Amino acid sequence: MALTTALTRRLGIRHPVISAPMHLVAGGALASAVSAAGGLGLIGGGYGDASWLDQQFDIAAGQRIGVGFITWSLRKSPPLLTDALKRRPVAVMLSFGDPRPFVDEIRAAGALLICQCQNIDHVWDAIDVKADIIVAQGAEAGGHGALRGTLSFVPEAADLIAAHAPDAILVAAGGIADGRGLAAALALGAEGALVGTRFWASAEALVHRRHHEAAIAASGDETIRTTVVDIARQIPWPRGFTARVCRNAFTQRWHGREDELERAAAVEGPRYRQAFTAGDPDNTGVWFGEAAGIIRSIEPAAAIVETMAQQAEAALKRIAS
Amino acid sequence: MALTTALTRRLGIRHPVISAPMHLVAGGALASAVSAAGGLGLIGGGYGDASWLDQQFDIAAGQRIGVGFITWSLRKSPPLLTDALKRRPVAVMLSFGDPRPFVDEIRAAGALLICQCQNIDHVWDAIDVKADIIVAQGAEAGGHGALRGTLSFVPEAADLIAAHAPDAILVAAGGIADGRGLAAALALGAEGALVGTRFWASAEALVHRRHHEAAIAASGDETIRTTVVDIARQIPWPRGFTARVCRNAFTQRWHGREDELERAAAVEGPRYRQAFTAGDPDNTGVWFGEAAGIIRSIEPAAAIVETMAQQAEAALKRIAS
Repeated sequence: MALTTALTRRLGIRHPVISAPMHLVAGGALASAVSAAGGLGLIGGGYGDASWLDQQFDIAAGQRIGVGFITWSLRKSPPLLTDALKRRPVAVMLSFGDPRPFVDEIRAAGALLICQCQNIDHVWDAIDVKADIIVAQGAEAGGHGALRGTLSFVPEAADLIAAHAPDAILVAAGGIADGRGLAAALALGAEGALVGTRFWASAEALVHRRHHEAAIAASGDETIRTTVVDIARQIPWPRGFTARVCRNAFTQRWHGREDELERAAAVEGPRYRQAFTAGDPDNTGVWFGEAAGIIRSIEPAAAIVETMAQQAEAALKRIAS
Repeated sequence: MALTTALTRRLGIRHPVISAPMHLVAGGALASAVSAAGGLGLIGGGYGDASWLDQQFDIAAGQRIGVGFITWSLRKSPPLLTDALKRRPVAVMLSFGDPRPFVDEIRAAGALLICQCQNIDHVWDAIDVKADIIVAQGAEAGGHGALRGTLSFVPEAADLIAAHAPDAILVAAGGIADGRGLAAALALGAEGALVGTRFWASAEALVHRRHHEAAIAASGDETIRTTVVDIARQIPWPRGFTARVCRNAFTQRWHGREDELERAAAVEGPRYRQAFTAGDPDNTGVWFGEAAGIIRSIEPAAAIVETMAQQAEAALKRIAS
């Protein structure tokens, strides 16, 4: 038995695992390590730092990787996409906004289009633009997302896609950090998993050691969906999206006092950013999801991919026997 | 291949499926139909209506069934448990509160103890009282629950139970409404599923036809976790628990205006209850979870149990091939 799925065939990869394009975390080192191990690594295109993105593509040179963008933010700096496509990524993932303005350019460059969805309306959008791969992301996920739980969202998306876009490939995201989660994703009707938090907690991720330590110490109960990290950073996320981060002194102080934080952002923004850079785990956003509860060590990305695939096979064999 | 698990062996049932003890919905007809079909049916012990509960046990007479209570509410009327135990239920489920005051009485009556948990602290409580069966319930669930997503919560609970209570049997709940969800539950490390919304949408459930129609029409996006249904009914739920219900005119009107509703409860409570009784789907709580998005018809409970087991086997075979 091997976990060969429509996703592994379409992408030409060995394991049905994609690493999430986490802003400033998923650089060239992480993406290329995931791809080298048999998954597909995505560089985080972020909010528009062209030189950072350029560096990361350089680091990943020679490896088949992809890139992901925050769609509403990309509309403010479309050259980011044009430059990224010159690097011949295997796939471009768009999440959090209307994909339509970018679809033609992505296709013309020969890259596969991945649309990440947080609710059923988004799935209809992805079907409408004929996305090659549709990611159904549940609220367990670290970082930005919305309200649907992965376990109920994935089969509902699967039914919609089977009826209206049978060639599109469904991938599950949100709370998947080991082979049990990957096996569950396949059982729910997905052809693979997009994994954030587990790769955030990898050796190659661009994450401060003390933030890694906070994730290892945390149970999955110790996260929260909130907008205070975006308000502090003065990043105008559209309504409906929140970020899951570690519940810490910063979120305890500001969650529920969003208006006040808005007014204090000139002072609190720099404080947030300083604490983030310093690796302070208490006074800034520490960006992991509920799956932190089953993460006990920082591992190389290659080991994560391999273990996840092996565990998924083992889980499926255990049930079958 | 058959879905024989530690749960089916311990309960002496054919399929690893338990129906949730939904208040005023899961009566004797539903519980006995689920048990007759090879699962385990639980009657909803609710908030303390002894004569209703008595009637439901009469309806289920002759069938091996269990019963479930809202733990914090049971403390106000402990004779409910004493009376229920005289009916020799196979199992008693306690959810939403400290199980300790009731554990000895349940054991002395020879019933298995099921503890339903919404977070890791609850799992520690269940381990501490040596629960026979521990249900990890995710936020996708209809009705009362809390914040954790099923997909991340179940494996974290599985790890804790494997390390500290290896004889306890883990069951997953929240968002599971078909065989794909059941197969995912097993992949995540559970030995079966506790299923609410799918049995709420069964022929035997005590649910108004128009509420059933609302669930069939709804996508999984059209629910909300809120406290307004409890405020209107003046039922003092402990902090930390919310109820997932259909997003409708009632929730649109009051969600976010909880203090105002509290003050208006003398008027709004009777209105809520009248609308509920009349089957009005707009001006009362309509109690289903995210899994409504994959429910397309009202079925007899027996068909639901059978289809769920068959689909789960098929899903696992599909992945293995």
